[in-house]
Amino acid sequence: MTDQKEKPWAGRFTEGTDHLVEEFTSSIAFDRKLHRYDIEGSRAHCRMLARQGLIAAEEETAILAGLDAIGKEMEAGTFPFTADLEDIHMAVEKALIARVGEAGGKLHTGRSRNDQVALDIRLYLRDALKALLAELETLKSFLITRARRELGVILPGYTHLQQAQPVLLSHYLLAFWEMFSRDTARLKDCLVRVNVSPLGSAALAGTGLPLDRSVTADLLDFPEISKNSMDAVSDRDFAAEFIFDSALVMMHLSRFCEDLILWSTEEFGFVSLSDAYTTGSSIMPQKKNPDVAELVRGKTGRVYGNLLALLTVLKGLPMTYNRDLQEDKEPLFDTVETVTASVRVFTGMLNHVTFNRDRMYEKVSAGFSTATDLAEHLVTRGIPFREAHGIVGRIVRYALDQGKDLKALSLPEFQNFYPGFDEGVYALLTPEYSVKTRKIPGGTAHDTVAARIEELESTGEKKPTRD
Amino acid sequence: MTDQKEKPWAGRFTEGTDHLVEEFTSSIAFDRKLHRYDIEGSRAHCRMLARQGLIAAEEETAILAGLDAIGKEMEAGTFPFTADLEDIHMAVEKALIARVGEAGGKLHTGRSRNDQVALDIRLYLRDALKALLAELETLKSFLITRARRELGVILPGYTHLQQAQPVLLSHYLLAFWEMFSRDTARLKDCLVRVNVSPLGSAALAGTGLPLDRSVTADLLDFPEISKNSMDAVSDRDFAAEFIFDSALVMMHLSRFCEDLILWSTEEFGFVSLSDAYTTGSSIMPQKKNPDVAELVRGKTGRVYGNLLALLTVLKGLPMTYNRDLQEDKEPLFDTVETVTASVRVFTGMLNHVTFNRDRMYEKVSAGFSTATDLAEHLVTRGIPFREAHGIVGRIVRYALDQGKDLKALSLPEFQNFYPGFDEGVYALLTPEYSVKTRKIPGGTAHDTVAARIEELESTGEKKPTRD
Amino acid sequence: MTDQKEKPWAGRFTEGTDHLVEEFTSSIAFDRKLHRYDIEGSRAHCRMLARQGLIAAEEETAILAGLDAIGKEMEAGTFPFTADLEDIHMAVEKALIARVGEAGGKLHTGRSRNDQVALDIRLYLRDALKALLAELETLKSFLITRARRELGVILPGYTHLQQAQPVLLSHYLLAFWEMFSRDTARLKDCLVRVNVSPLGSAALAGTGLPLDRSVTADLLDFPEISKNSMDAVSDRDFAAEFIFDSALVMMHLSRFCEDLILWSTEEFGFVSLSDAYTTGSSIMPQKKNPDVAELVRGKTGRVYGNLLALLTVLKGLPMTYNRDLQEDKEPLFDTVETVTASVRVFTGMLNHVTFNRDRMYEKVSAGFSTATDLAEHLVTRGIPFREAHGIVGRIVRYALDQGKDLKALSLPEFQNFYPGFDEGVYALLTPEYSVKTRKIPGGTAHDTVAARIEELESTGEKKPTRD
Amino acid sequence: MTDQKEKPWAGRFTEGTDHLVEEFTSSIAFDRKLHRYDIEGSRAHCRMLARQGLIAAEEETAILAGLDAIGKEMEAGTFPFTADLEDIHMAVEKALIARVGEAGGKLHTGRSRNDQVALDIRLYLRDALKALLAELETLKSFLITRARRELGVILPGYTHLQQAQPVLLSHYLLAFWEMFSRDTARLKDCLVRVNVSPLGSAALAGTGLPLDRSVTADLLDFPEISKNSMDAVSDRDFAAEFIFDSALVMMHLSRFCEDLILWSTEEFGFVSLSDAYTTGSSIMPQKKNPDVAELVRGKTGRVYGNLLALLTVLKGLPMTYNRDLQEDKEPLFDTVETVTASVRVFTGMLNHVTFNRDRMYEKVSAGFSTATDLAEHLVTRGIPFREAHGIVGRIVRYALDQGKDLKALSLPEFQNFYPGFDEGVYALLTPEYSVKTRKIPGGTAHDTVAARIEELESTGEKKPTRD
Repeated sequence: MTDQKEKPWAGRFTEGTDHLVEEFTSSIAFDRKLHRYDIEGSRAHCRMLARQGLIAAEEETAILAGLDAIGKEMEAGTFPFTADLEDIHMAVEKALIARVGEAGGKLHTGRSRNDQVALDIRLYLRDALKALLAELETLKSFLITRARRELGVILPGYTHLQQAQPVLLSHYLLAFWEMFSRDTARLKDCLVRVNVSPLGSAALAGTGLPLDRSVTADLLDFPEISKNSMDAVSDRDFAAEFIFDSALVMMHLSRFCEDLILWSTEEFGFVSLSDAYTTGSSIMPQKKNPDVAELVRGKTGRVYGNLLALLTVLKGLPMTYNRDLQEDKEPLFDTVETVTASVRVFTGMLNHVTFNRDRMYEKVSAGFSTATDLAEHLVTRGIPFREAHGIVGRIVRYALDQGKDLKALSLPEFQNFYPGFDEGVYALLTPEYSVKTRKIPGGTAHDTVAARIEELESTGEKKPTRD
Repeated sequence: MTDQKEKPWAGRFTEGTDHLVEEFTSSIAFDRKLHRYDIEGSRAHCRMLARQGLIAAEEETAILAGLDAIGKEMEAGTFPFTADLEDIHMAVEKALIARVGEAGGKLHTGRSRNDQVALDIRLYLRDALKALLAELETLKSFLITRARRELGVILPGYTHLQQAQPVLLSHYLLAFWEMFSRDTARLKDCLVRVNVSPLGSAALAGTGLPLDRSVTADLLDFPEISKNSMDAVSDRDFAAEFIFDSALVMMHLSRFCEDLILWSTEEFGFVSLSDAYTTGSSIMPQKKNPDVAELVRGKTGRVYGNLLALLTVLKGLPMTYNRDLQEDKEPLFDTVETVTASVRVFTGMLNHVTFNRDRMYEKVSAGFSTATDLAEHLVTRGIPFREAHGIVGRIVRYALDQGKDLKALSLPEFQNFYPGFDEGVYALLTPEYSVKTRKIPGGTAHDTVAARIEELESTGEKKPTRD
Repeated sequence: MTDQKEKPWAGRFTEGTDHLVEEFTSSIAFDRKLHRYDIEGSRAHCRMLARQGLIAAEEETAILAGLDAIGKEMEAGTFPFTADLEDIHMAVEKALIARVGEAGGKLHTGRSRNDQVALDIRLYLRDALKALLAELETLKSFLITRARRELGVILPGYTHLQQAQPVLLSHYLLAFWEMFSRDTARLKDCLVRVNVSPLGSAALAGTGLPLDRSVTADLLDFPEISKNSMDAVSDRDFAAEFIFDSALVMMHLSRFCEDLILWSTEEFGFVSLSDAYTTGSSIMPQKKNPDVAELVRGKTGRVYGNLLALLTVLKGLPMTYNRDLQEDKEPLFDTVETVTASVRVFTGMLNHVTFNRDRMYEKVSAGFSTATDLAEHLVTRGIPFREAHGIVGRIVRYALDQGKDLKALSLPEFQNFYPGFDEGVYALLTPEYSVKTRKIPGGTAHDTVAARIEELESTGEKKPTRD
Repeated sequence: MTDQKEKPWAGRFTEGTDHLVEEFTSSIAFDRKLHRYDIEGSRAHCRMLARQGLIAAEEETAILAGLDAIGKEMEAGTFPFTADLEDIHMAVEKALIARVGEAGGKLHTGRSRNDQVALDIRLYLRDALKALLAELETLKSFLITRARRELGVILPGYTHLQQAQPVLLSHYLLAFWEMFSRDTARLKDCLVRVNVSPLGSAALAGTGLPLDRSVTADLLDFPEISKNSMDAVSDRDFAAEFIFDSALVMMHLSRFCEDLILWSTEEFGFVSLSDAYTTGSSIMPQKKNPDVAELVRGKTGRVYGNLLALLTVLKGLPMTYNRDLQEDKEPLFDTVETVTASVRVFTGMLNHVTFNRDRMYEKVSAGFSTATDLAEHLVTRGIPFREAHGIVGRIVRYALDQGKDLKALSLPEFQNFYPGFDEGVYALLTPEYSVKTRKIPGGTAHDTVAARIEELESTGEKKPTRD
């Protein structure tokens, strides 16, 4: 048994905490990640207390110096974290009292761990969000650059993993730009809801002491303060929202990875991955595996799991703070680390991918991927689309039976199905023609895609600097 | 076997679809919910085709008339939906051709089911979103009205389900206003991403025919068109985002329900539910059960399940459209119906709840929920908070041992723990005092809460009309 | 408002149920699926009541006749289900009283809807489980038959979707036999826990009336009765377990489908799907899509969602029955229907798959998939495996640089890397050799696989008859 | 860049692994938990290799000594784990070669990391499963002991959290015995599927070298070997099954915790938690919070998340091994640790709970929880149950209107509703009578429950020793 009397809240207790319980309930093993934010928040609280006359100037000085010293120890990894410290807040407070004496005992004035931890998580997440946004900007920039570089490369576009229609590789790459751009928008929306100061909400009811919430909010650069103390201490919406937004980022990455894994098979052969971004087999000497893409795809499951974990914790909790909420931190931390590392390593991998243009062209020019062009051509000849579709379907059926692809059919063969065909039909059957005609906004025509690239290049999608 | 030849895409097929397969793959049983939107989208597409000269004016007239007639049949429930119709799009097209002949076969010009279904879901969800927003506004309005009405009622605020500090019932109600207000903000952010027209993306590459995407977008009241055809046909982010936002709405409701279920126990006794919002037992004649609150809480699980289902479907899908995406609709539809009905019935229930003020007051005035006030008082006397907390903790311990509550202790007893106490101590121990002092913004003081109500009343949180 | 007085439990109520509430809380729309089981359970209960003298013989006769008549109406679809009937139990009871008068009011003696619904679900699930087991047996049988038929076909085995080593197609098929065999084992374990009669547990405490639980258990063919009434009315473990077991079935199917989708790409070309099991495109005339495989893969998400939904509902529920439990049925029903249909349609599809042996052989005999054989050969020559792996790795590197595959290297080229190589090396590089050597139990050698097929054929994996 | 040449599989590579990739793909940070099992498995593999003549006796001796030394370093925490070691298997092999030279390079003969990691996880999980079973036995034993000790204590049983009928506390406790007993059965079923040796499956096809799988299986105490090498290296069913079984354990604990949290409120007051199993507030001096129960409830979300994470990873994976599978370990490890610690700390907490009999009795003897007894009594007087229910319902309604509970009604008042009532009615209204009559098997009667306790005590539910 720990001597309960050492716990800062132990006045009304007669018995100490069971060691098993201490270990089970302690969060210090993971919430120490918040140390920078806990100290930053305490510094602001301390300065506000002094400004409000709740502590003396010399107490403020002592506390700030103490917090700085503790912060440095924590940063340096020399601070002795132990399970009996319960959590990062008590760890800091205890160390502070040990250093600066009675003044340290005044820091918690008008504050509860309930608003304090809400503050710490918000500060942490605000930084994490910005770092993730920067990674996403890098990836998006890279996609534009690559789309510019690959302009002209045609490959088969797929639906149902069957060759469907020719598309530009650049168009494909920009499809992912769209996805990550939506992710960015969602994360920015989330940031607004993260960026709210809960400090001053105390345990659940606010404090009766004359704190000034706007002072701490200003010091900590919060544009807004929370409007209801009961909500503020029990709200974890912002964490769930961030994890969800991250789940979509991972989902998008997983789709990209799926394609890259397929494309790097011997059978597709559309991409070659760099040695630096693959690993080998312990038994099969010839293997070169797309591990990074597989792992990113796999880690999507992890973030989905984190999302469901937090949602499950929150469901049906009575108001206001309940200890279940301690289970918010590990899924959040793990998500931050997983999604940020995944975007970063994925960007690196993409940077080392070689697209095998010849192989792509070989595949897109064989087969039937221009059948739709043929049907659309018939439409321009006045045939209702549904009928045109039927005619071309029968041509395809015939070609399959003959073991030929479309362009190998003779003109009389074409005319058997529609007498109006002339020599011009062969021009319709090239991937280049197919791509060229899709000038509709959002389509895959060269000019359309080039214009889009230009637009994205010019609208200040600047290369962000990483923090 | 169905005669494959009846299928609109059957040109290249020699064999019909297996009946088992037809039933398994058909979505008509559920996507018929989209009929209104499918027809609305087809009307716009038809008008654009005419404007672009792709169909003749008389064809336009025929198609529009045909669509209207089909729409009316579907609305009236007389349209014969059968599994071999595959989906709502083919059902409409087939019926149209049956009605208006060859012109009907022109409607699908420059369109694929891939962009068509994306359009339908977006139109459906746009309406559903607005309806949900209206329900949430009603609930939020109601919370303000009720907060106004209950102003003055004090109850124990809880943390860890232990009595913590006195709070105003109105403050409690407004905490939920904050939650639903965040939900509203999230849903509005989502609406922006829903409100984008994918029409013109065709199968995946855009169409080579001269469609005008801005015309259909205008006709369908979309402020934006999608920027990349490959993305547009495979994007279901907006559906996942809506389900997530709904999951948070349900989570908030579940927390409210949990409290109402607790509060309606004989042991708490804080609320009485109306007979109209409870049900009885088939065996126990005395029972009156808070079924609505329990069901809303339970239905949270359903929406969580829907979220996971869709996220699982999307993970690792290769580009672009894959049939797996058909599994987007049922979770989405079920979520729309569940969350909308839950908000509505919950609002109704809340409207029929009686808060038992006397019982609340009895509970808040016994016990120790003003202990924090005592500690904060000591702080104003210059005692460091941590020491003040210890003094009051020991007083509580002593009172518990004596079987008394705080206000039953004599002044000498108080002075044993801190000699500076005087008769004024008893005034600190009332719930009224406790509440009154928490004037900090976001706190539970009467004036603070009253000001907040006024603010919310005045900032145009108008009672919305329900569609 | 419904006249509450019509509700069988309405004695203590003064006000009727709100219509919105009635609709929201009614389960009749989905629990009517249980009608057969509800009536079967009621028949057994009735006969037991008569045997115990709690109802008279003529009452028994009347009730049984009434139940039969109601059952027939429900089976025929002529029974008028309406939302105000609340649930299947009240629907039957009300109809019974309408038919047979006062005797009908005795049927609920010693019974509550709490134990009744637990009974109904168990009866339903017992049947569903057996039907699913039969479908799985059909699939497993089919896999054995197909493995027998394809014996001799070699294809590349993959890890990381990279060609790894040659394997027999039959070995591949039997890998799935193993998976479905574990599924079968799990479902049989689950059946034991489903097959327990809760009847007699009443609301939560058991009944004070002299029922005989063993009589109803016997009549309903339950080998066991539940041991604790409070547990019995709140236990849904068996439903969660069934959904989990089904989730694994779906996961296994999804893996099989993933391979079939890959294999049916033009790029792999390992399988051809039958027209009867594919569908076409509304726009692209050449398309033939593996929709069934895609949908089965997609429906995995749905079952995962159902699992999470039920687990979420159950978490943190206070004892004993709570209305949240009504949310058990839809995920369960949907899972039963999804998994059973998926196994069935998947089996049908597999039955219509053609494996393209020549294409498989072409792929397995090019490339480097016998590199491991070379390394293992070096081991038999006394070279430590790690060193042998290195030697072969360098040979592969060299061959890649030369643009050759292994068997195209000359003997001197081989000897550059290991002087001991002789002409025998070329024999090691054939897929046939590779497969032949893997005689280790569980390995892919022809004889080993053939023996396994024989074993499975003989151990009575008989073709089950479908119910 | 790491010098790729140091990687044991690097023969065919020309470029080293990017550092970012190395860190991202390395699993050494968590799979080092498997070190004991990796070495145990390698020892068995080495002994088998020697027995089969694949390595010499002196090589065997050297390898075993080397493995022992490495194992001791790892146990002692002095082994230098670094990210470039990739995983536990490579870490051990590299250290072994460093220690014993060329012989070390022979250990991986006929083995792949694919079968090796499958082995390690199975060995790990087998131990973990047994440890969890032991914890569950302790909890179950404790429940029996406590049920014996509390025999005679009556409390209100609840449905919908409304008082329903009187039950014995012992009956309540044994309801949880049933749940944990099913958990035990499920885990034992799972153990059978865990306890299978995959060793010898090599990468996916088995090995061509003459290993003897039965020798390693015997040495490692596996009753069974896997039957198909492709299945064996890609099967993680057993891990998912264990996590699911754990999810149900957590769900049961969460329900128990929910009740204990409710019961420890001031409002219920049914239990007092020990100081040793609660903690205080940093701000509110009077607080004593049921943190352990809240955390266990919260941690349920974590295990649900782990389950979904793994299921998501597995869905749609092509055969056989894919790197995504590396994501199996963290959810598994976390589940093992969470569920084992939760059962243990929960048992400790329960051991320190005081049930407040008087308060329970006060609650059960007021109110209407014997209304069902009254209805059942009327049935024995020949009144159809449905009518009896109505009569009693009206009595309850009347009593509520009078502000009385049932036993406060006069005989004439009773007779107003049913003239046949006599003085005997009051005897029916006591909790003792209610409980006594529920002698039906599984019911809450004192004798029934006492018999059940005896049965459980005698059937060798012996107190297990903890590992």
